[in-house]
Amino acid sequence: MSKAAELRPVHWTGGGLRLIDQSRLPQELIYLDLSRYQEVAQAIKEMKVRGAPAIGVAAAYGLALGAQEIQAKTKEEFLSKLKEVSRTLASTRPTAVNLFAALSRLEAKAQSVGLAQIKESLLAEAQRMEEEDVAANRALGQYGAALMEDGFTVLTHCNAGALATAGYGTALGVIRAAWEQGKKLHVFVPETRPQLQGARLTAWELKQEGIPFTLITDSMAGHFMKRGQIQCAVVGADRIAANGDTANKIGTYTLAVLARENKIPFYVAAPLSTIDLNSASGDDIPIEERNPEEVTHLRGQATAPPGVAAANPAFDVTPHRYISAIITDQGVIHHPYKSSLRKVVHGQTAAK
Amino acid sequence: MSKAAELRPVHWTGGGLRLIDQSRLPQELIYLDLSRYQEVAQAIKEMKVRGAPAIGVAAAYGLALGAQEIQAKTKEEFLSKLKEVSRTLASTRPTAVNLFAALSRLEAKAQSVGLAQIKESLLAEAQRMEEEDVAANRALGQYGAALMEDGFTVLTHCNAGALATAGYGTALGVIRAAWEQGKKLHVFVPETRPQLQGARLTAWELKQEGIPFTLITDSMAGHFMKRGQIQCAVVGADRIAANGDTANKIGTYTLAVLARENKIPFYVAAPLSTIDLNSASGDDIPIEERNPEEVTHLRGQATAPPGVAAANPAFDVTPHRYISAIITDQGVIHHPYKSSLRKVVHGQTAAK
Repeated sequence: MSKAAELRPVHWTGGGLRLIDQSRLPQELIYLDLSRYQEVAQAIKEMKVRGAPAIGVAAAYGLALGAQEIQAKTKEEFLSKLKEVSRTLASTRPTAVNLFAALSRLEAKAQSVGLAQIKESLLAEAQRMEEEDVAANRALGQYGAALMEDGFTVLTHCNAGALATAGYGTALGVIRAAWEQGKKLHVFVPETRPQLQGARLTAWELKQEGIPFTLITDSMAGHFMKRGQIQCAVVGADRIAANGDTANKIGTYTLAVLARENKIPFYVAAPLSTIDLNSASGDDIPIEERNPEEVTHLRGQATAPPGVAAANPAFDVTPHRYISAIITDQGVIHHPYKSSLRKVVHGQTAAK
Repeated sequence: MSKAAELRPVHWTGGGLRLIDQSRLPQELIYLDLSRYQEVAQAIKEMKVRGAPAIGVAAAYGLALGAQEIQAKTKEEFLSKLKEVSRTLASTRPTAVNLFAALSRLEAKAQSVGLAQIKESLLAEAQRMEEEDVAANRALGQYGAALMEDGFTVLTHCNAGALATAGYGTALGVIRAAWEQGKKLHVFVPETRPQLQGARLTAWELKQEGIPFTLITDSMAGHFMKRGQIQCAVVGADRIAANGDTANKIGTYTLAVLARENKIPFYVAAPLSTIDLNSASGDDIPIEERNPEEVTHLRGQATAPPGVAAANPAFDVTPHRYISAIITDQGVIHHPYKSSLRKVVHGQTAAK
C-alpha cells in the first residue's frame, strides 16, 4: 500500500490525539500531540485539522479528552459538565455536520452507560469512529471506483483526501481505489483559494501516491471541461441535506453547474455520517463566513490594496439537481435523493 | 473628474512612451519611460502593460519608436526594416487582437506616405490611436451605463479598467460612466488568479474612484449569483470573433455559464478595435499558455509542493450564446452577432 493511503491524520496514539498540522503542509509534515479538549477545539477552528470526516473524528476525541478531566459525583453532574465541553467543540465551525453528529453520538453513549464507565466508553467510541471512518472511506472508494473508467481525467476540488478524513479519503478515496484497481487516471486539481487545499494538500497526496495530475487555478476548470478534457468530477461534502443539496468547499456549486453544462457526470463522495436528514434542504445549512484576510492575503502576503472589503464564505450549496449520484459507504445513491438518502440512512441505523 | 478616470497608463510624453508598471501595483505606482521598441516588446511580454486596448496602443508606440531608429535609402528598405520591428512586437502575446490590428494599421500608414514622412506619420498615428481609445471607452461607457440600473450589484472579472486601456476602461468604463451619472452601484471583484489583476488592479482603481466593491476569490461568484446578490456581469475582451465568440481572461467562460444559469445578463464591453472579423469563431483564436510557475506560485511564493505540473491558459473563449449583448463605442450590439458585428465594423470603416 502506498504512503498516502496509510496516512492517519486524526489518530489516537494511546496517550493522546495525534493530528497532522495541515496548515503547515506541503512545506512541512508536522504532527501535533494534543491532550486537552481546548487544544482540539483550537485546532479545528484554525483549520489545522479540516475536512468534514476528520473534524468529526477530532471532535469525538476532543469530547473524550474533555471527559477524562471531569470530576463529578453523579452521572447527572458529569453529563452537565460534558455538555459544556461539547458546546466549546460545537462552536468551532458551523457547516460540517460530522462535527455535531460526532458530539451527539458520544453524548448519547455517555447517557447509556454508568458513571464509572463514561470516560472509558467515550474514548472507545471515539476510536471506533476513527476506524469506522477509514472503513467507510475504503468502502465508498470501491463503490465509486466502478464509476471511473480507465483513461478518465477526473476533476476534484479542495481536498477530500486522506487528510480530510481519518484515512484514505472520500473523493480522493474513489480516485485512489480506481488507481489501485489499475485504472489509469489523470486528475485536475483546482488550487482552491483562499486556503489552497488543492494546491497544498491534494497535490501533496497525489504526488505521494504517484497519480498523475495537473494543478489549475479555480477559474480554469470550465475551460478544460468545454474542451472535452475532463470526463467526470468527484468532490467531497461537508453536509448533505435530506433532499441531496450538498454543502461543500466554496466553488463546488460552480463546478457542478459547469459539469452539467458540459454533460459531465458530477459525483459527491461522502460517508453516511455526512448526511443530515434534519436539514430538509440546502437552505437549512449554515454557511461559515471566515476572516476576509484569507481573501485579501495569501499566506500572510497582501494581494490587494490595504483596507479593501472582502467576502469569505467557506462553503456553497450545490442543489441536488446538479448531482449525478452520491457515492456512500453503503453504495451509490441516485435520484430522487429525498427517498434514497432516507432509505440508506435508516437502513444503516437499523443494521447497527 | 476623479483621479482614476484621468489615468493614462499608455501615454506619449513628447519624448517617449510612458507606461504604468502594472506588475508593481497596488504596492507601488511606478512609471516606466521607454524609448526603444525592444523595451516596449519586453514590457508587453512581462505584462507590465496588459489589457487588450492598452497592448494595442503600446504596440503602436513600439512600432513608431522602432521606426525612429531606422536608416534607409528607399521606402522599400524602410518598410522591410519596419516589418522586422513589427515581427518582434507581434511575437509578444498571441491572443489580444488589438496588438495585431495596431501593427497592421501603422504598417498601412507607412505604406501610404512618402519615405520622408514615415517616422513622423507613425508617431502621429500612434498618438491618434491613444486618443481614439480613450474616446471609444468614454463612448462605450455611455452606451453601457444605460444598461446599469441604480442599485445594481455588478460582477466584473480581471481588470478591464483604465489600466487595461489608454484610459477610462471598457467594463470599468461602463461602471464608471454609470457611477458618474449618479447611479449607486456595488461591484463584485474576483481576484483573478493567477496574476490577480482583480485584487491588484481593479480593486485599486475602484478604491481611487470611491465606488464600493467586494473582493472575492474566483470560486465565489457563482455562490453570490445563486443567492440573488448580483444583477449583471460586465467584462472586457481580448478578441471578439466574427460570430461573437469572445476570448477574455481565463474564468470568463465560467462566469458567463453561471450568469446564464442564474438568469443574469452577461455583457462584454470592448471598442471595435477588439473585434476580429478574420476569426470566424472562437476556434480560430489562439489561446496563450503562460509559465506554469504563475499557478504553482503566487508573487514568488510557492503554493504547491515542488515539481508539480500545472496548466496556465491565460484566456478562455465564451461562446456567443452566453453573451447577452456586446457594448461597443458604436452602440450596444445584439444577437445575431454574425450580422450585427459585421455591420457595425463595416459601418465604422465606411465612416472614416
